[in-house]
Amino acid sequence: MISGTQFTIVYDVLSFSFATMMATTIFLWMRVPSVHEKYKSALIISGLVTFIASYHYLRMFNSWTEAYEWTGEGELAKTGSPFNDAYRYMDWLLTVPLLLIEIILVMKLPADESKSKATTLGIASAAMIAIGYPGELFMSEDNLGGRWVYWIGAMLPFLYIVQTLLVGLNDATQSEADPAVRKLIKGVQWWTVIAWCTYPVVYIFPMMGISGSNAIVGIQLGYSVSDIISKCGVGLLIYQITIAKSLALKNGNEETPLL
Amino acid sequence: MISGTQFTIVYDVLSFSFATMMATTIFLWMRVPSVHEKYKSALIISGLVTFIASYHYLRMFNSWTEAYEWTGEGELAKTGSPFNDAYRYMDWLLTVPLLLIEIILVMKLPADESKSKATTLGIASAAMIAIGYPGELFMSEDNLGGRWVYWIGAMLPFLYIVQTLLVGLNDATQSEADPAVRKLIKGVQWWTVIAWCTYPVVYIFPMMGISGSNAIVGIQLGYSVSDIISKCGVGLLIYQITIAKSLALKNGNEETPLL
Repeated sequence: MISGTQFTIVYDVLSFSFATMMATTIFLWMRVPSVHEKYKSALIISGLVTFIASYHYLRMFNSWTEAYEWTGEGELAKTGSPFNDAYRYMDWLLTVPLLLIEIILVMKLPADESKSKATTLGIASAAMIAIGYPGELFMSEDNLGGRWVYWIGAMLPFLYIVQTLLVGLNDATQSEADPAVRKLIKGVQWWTVIAWCTYPVVYIFPMMGISGSNAIVGIQLGYSVSDIISKCGVGLLIYQITIAKSLALKNGNEETPLL
Repeated sequence: MISGTQFTIVYDVLSFSFATMMATTIFLWMRVPSVHEKYKSALIISGLVTFIASYHYLRMFNSWTEAYEWTGEGELAKTGSPFNDAYRYMDWLLTVPLLLIEIILVMKLPADESKSKATTLGIASAAMIAIGYPGELFMSEDNLGGRWVYWIGAMLPFLYIVQTLLVGLNDATQSEADPAVRKLIKGVQWWTVIAWCTYPVVYIFPMMGISGSNAIVGIQLGYSVSDIISKCGVGLLIYQITIAKSLALKNGNEETPLL
């Protein structure tokens, strides 16, 4: 059973994540009128990712507070209503493909390559999440084998995505004329990969000897930090790219919007 | 145990602070279309600061009302659900770096200096809050030593921030051609420092002989007043600067936006 302090840590982290996601959403959306037509979709989608996440963090916060009740000073009891962790997977099913699309949209790619890359990355990321979820249900120490099987299954599309971000899109990154923009795009690619690499590590917390209530708290904390970096951090980098590229386009060499 | 009157004072102050933060947010955001492209981000961020604060005041209000119940005419009892004061620290972790960034954004600094100042001030303020929080948990009279240790620890980054605001940024302030703008920027710097100096004073209320329920009420009241000055007051000064500078830019000498 979880302690009062552990309950409060998860409660605070879920609330903090909600506030961070919502604040980022508003900033990104309020900046849309200031970027060039070509990059408005990328900025709107970056805001959608944090908006969808803020919705799910609010739901998780409510689900968490409904799962426990205070029975006295520092004492907790389960209410019987289960904490619904599936919110994270429903969130990722929507936000992870969108995150990859927002990256593709700010890169210098021919229209047909943008479309094909967005499609394959979108499908790979949806598969990764769909395969990962069933393993999340194996939590007790005697059936961690099942968790490993799904972890390995989800790692295959995961590695394909990482390979595409770091190697497959390298030519497009190198073709950026402005070194500041090139640096920002590299930043987006690396921060996405670094943040994403933390998810499979958090996933195997139960296999690393972290068990019971410590595993629950560790998983909630770990996923929340990774979400803030990969959604808010990367979203704000995407914003900087759209602003920099919009300024460069101001001198009249207009192109048609991608999305 | 807290009295009915004390309960009502905190209840009213938390509600008043929420209303003030929300009203300031709406005003600041509704004025965004009227300022020059260069200053839109500063105004949006000023509104984000009060928006994030209004979220946390709403949460604190709810947490406060859930921590106590009326058992009869003027009689209160604890419900067992603890009042979550950590909301203030999560709020500050987000809003204090943003507050410093909004000040940097309206100042006349070269782009690279803006970035480096925003980074160092952001890190210093996050460190100040992270160090201050553990001390906040020492409340009873026999372990105030721990509270002093964290107070001193948090004062170091605090003094660095004050020194940067009053001395480090002085050249940039003096370089403002318009005396009205210079006066406003000095106002922002001084009001920020004055409002911020109240936080470490409120923090040591328990060491000044204010104990028990009086300390709880005093801390909530003190922090709320300081928050309103440093977030709403400074936000409205920032607004005046963005409007004054936008008017000056109207005559055609356009520059690129900072953020």
